[in-house]
Amino acid sequence: MAVTMEQLVALAKHRGFIFPGSDIYGGLANTWDYGPLGVELKNNIKRAWWKKFIHESPYNVGIDAAILMNRQVWVASGHVSHFNDPMIDCRACKARHRADKLIEEALAAKGIERSVDGLPFAEMEAIIRTYDIRCPDCGAHDFTPIRQFNMMFRTFQGVTEDASSEVFLRPETAQGIFVNFKHVQRVMRKKLPFGIGQIGKSFRNEITPGNFIFRTREFEQMELEFFCEPGTDLEWFQYWRQFCFDWLVSLGIRRENLRFRDHAKEQLSHYSAATTDIEYRFPFGWGELLGVADRTDYDLRQHQAYSHEDFTVTEEGKEPFIPYCIEPSIGVDRLLLAILADAYEEETLPDGTTRTVLHFHPALAPYQAAVFPQSKKLAAGARQVYEQLVGEFVVDYDETGSIGKRYRRHDEIGTPYCITYDFQSEEDGCVTIRDRDTMQQVRLPIPDIANWLRAHTRI
Amino acid sequence: MAVTMEQLVALAKHRGFIFPGSDIYGGLANTWDYGPLGVELKNNIKRAWWKKFIHESPYNVGIDAAILMNRQVWVASGHVSHFNDPMIDCRACKARHRADKLIEEALAAKGIERSVDGLPFAEMEAIIRTYDIRCPDCGAHDFTPIRQFNMMFRTFQGVTEDASSEVFLRPETAQGIFVNFKHVQRVMRKKLPFGIGQIGKSFRNEITPGNFIFRTREFEQMELEFFCEPGTDLEWFQYWRQFCFDWLVSLGIRRENLRFRDHAKEQLSHYSAATTDIEYRFPFGWGELLGVADRTDYDLRQHQAYSHEDFTVTEEGKEPFIPYCIEPSIGVDRLLLAILADAYEEETLPDGTTRTVLHFHPALAPYQAAVFPQSKKLAAGARQVYEQLVGEFVVDYDETGSIGKRYRRHDEIGTPYCITYDFQSEEDGCVTIRDRDTMQQVRLPIPDIANWLRAHTRI
Repeated sequence: MAVTMEQLVALAKHRGFIFPGSDIYGGLANTWDYGPLGVELKNNIKRAWWKKFIHESPYNVGIDAAILMNRQVWVASGHVSHFNDPMIDCRACKARHRADKLIEEALAAKGIERSVDGLPFAEMEAIIRTYDIRCPDCGAHDFTPIRQFNMMFRTFQGVTEDASSEVFLRPETAQGIFVNFKHVQRVMRKKLPFGIGQIGKSFRNEITPGNFIFRTREFEQMELEFFCEPGTDLEWFQYWRQFCFDWLVSLGIRRENLRFRDHAKEQLSHYSAATTDIEYRFPFGWGELLGVADRTDYDLRQHQAYSHEDFTVTEEGKEPFIPYCIEPSIGVDRLLLAILADAYEEETLPDGTTRTVLHFHPALAPYQAAVFPQSKKLAAGARQVYEQLVGEFVVDYDETGSIGKRYRRHDEIGTPYCITYDFQSEEDGCVTIRDRDTMQQVRLPIPDIANWLRAHTRI
Repeated sequence: MAVTMEQLVALAKHRGFIFPGSDIYGGLANTWDYGPLGVELKNNIKRAWWKKFIHESPYNVGIDAAILMNRQVWVASGHVSHFNDPMIDCRACKARHRADKLIEEALAAKGIERSVDGLPFAEMEAIIRTYDIRCPDCGAHDFTPIRQFNMMFRTFQGVTEDASSEVFLRPETAQGIFVNFKHVQRVMRKKLPFGIGQIGKSFRNEITPGNFIFRTREFEQMELEFFCEPGTDLEWFQYWRQFCFDWLVSLGIRRENLRFRDHAKEQLSHYSAATTDIEYRFPFGWGELLGVADRTDYDLRQHQAYSHEDFTVTEEGKEPFIPYCIEPSIGVDRLLLAILADAYEEETLPDGTTRTVLHFHPALAPYQAAVFPQSKKLAAGARQVYEQLVGEFVVDYDETGSIGKRYRRHDEIGTPYCITYDFQSEEDGCVTIRDRDTMQQVRLPIPDIANWLRAHTRI
């Protein structure tokens, strides 16, 4: 039986993965706080991305740009004028909706699959009339006209609140990369093709955030901007499209829950030569997990126009050109949700009992291992095993309840290996390691555990 | 000769540690972007803190709370009413100053060391008149009265900009911990004493940011809130005070550049029972690097009053109580600046030549190692060495210029170990490893390098 969102939200809260934000004050819209296990899982996901996309890549380096940037960045990028959602209000109950989502969901309920993203407002309003689309909250058919709503959070820096001090919270990390393109290329002595990656918080004032951590106003992104010569871009687009898919599979996400959705020509942004989403089958349906876009030279060309910095690259025997850019972009929170959903199982065991288990990849699990003394009398020996591992791995020490209970507790938070120090350990200097998924045990000499764990938790 | 701020800023920019933020648009106040080497150094610092304060601690767990929190959090914490700086304007040149800093710097120039932090405004204004303090920008003695300036950045979430949608960017990560205290205690089955740690961005609308990354409006914090029984708090205060100092020393910061500054009773915040700063001798003088405060039960008591959540703890045989809290808090950016300054050396070598070298702790260095083929002809063998290491360590592959030039390049970015694959390696399967600080070399069989590096880059 497939996991539901309710089950995930409940498990996440009760086992310390994710709590509602500002919970003691009744929360704040759709904000979420990562608990002790959630922060470990999230850090492991970010580390896996950085390792794969930056450290192990022959092409890429990382940066960490500030969230607050000069306002002109967002003028040049087009966000000030174009980063809008179509907003519509129900006059009867005052509910506010994203017009495109309202229409698409109403049509889908009538069996019509249609994207209205980017249609002129008059056309959207016509569709609402034609199909007699109603407010999902109150059922009325009495809407305001559609208006633009800019999704950037704005604030003021310095001591006056006027236009000159207005700054935005970045709605994407990508622009922090484009403005640093020249600096990075120069100091790292990089030749094309090469990429610059970044992990960091972004903010979008979504009209209707929701679906747990799938769509939140504050979220974390992992973005790579990969620069290459025009003409080679579609080849690199294919390269990163497959690279990303393979990476998701390497994290343990089941292939059957992933699919490509290539954007048709008429769905592409005006600057994009090709875009693919990789979608995941979330409990609420297929949803975008990762996007790969060929952004052509749009961003660097815009910044060249607005900043008068020269972004052309000159290579021997070629006309100077502005590099093209392939962007694989993924949300950390969204990926964490997919990993959580994919790992979840309520398993019926051969003896008819059931267990809840999270089948995380061992490198992503909050704890790589847990160490149990079989009895509290054996604490000294078990502690030594724990101390030997804790400098290199994230390890829990657990001595309460029966061994069976401790296994169940760690199954439910995804700990791949439970190490039991038992009475026999005092004699033979060995411990048993129990595998979360197979529930099989192996017995190993204590000095060998670190090497064994290193080999079994690698990604 | 001690390093100057100018040297640090220049090295940071030219070697890819830190670039001015939004540089192609003339920057944005005092914002900075971490370049390819800076982001590695910063990540290593954060990882070292997390390992020491969370993973290896028998007491502590981590969380990652949202930056945007319910407005009531900041009412309860006192930030809405009290998180103010005294602001004063020069009527002549319109320059804006923090009144307390203006006075302290003017008095210091006259040889008077005095803190005016927290004095009533009338008293500060009297000091300005008495000492004929002048505007440091234009020299005039013509100031406005001092006013309060709240340092929280505010923005609006949702689609209306009114009081009901006003939210703040958090000015500290600590409150995200307090509001999650009960959740964490329950799900992690924690008994006192225990701590909750967090790393994340905070924002303060400083009137006068400056000194490179020492004081910026957007910055990253590493905070631990350690909860204990009242009466044991001063003992735990001493414990964490020393723990933090020892940790800084373990990162390789020289003892003589660190000092404690215990706050005198009259300098303490009204809720604090004890506070100590650990200061570092920055190129611009001693400055706060880390603070340890005994915050008593102030925060939990405030949140109990405003949220009606019950924060009392009941332990067998004791009266119910609200836990006391010890807070060791450190800024990531500030610590990075201290580490950079402390590591910097322009060294004169025995042969009279000089080199610039960054003596980073090997675990903090952007690259743990660099692999060089002695000649490009040896690329295949050197590549194999590189591939063997890159899954576990951060390694650069560098084949341009003489070996001597490559050493200098890596000295200047702090790479502790340079591994050269030479013609002899083809015969004996060994490589030389050159130590950055001693410039001594050892020769090792290739299969042994990973173990050797693991042992030499541990923290």
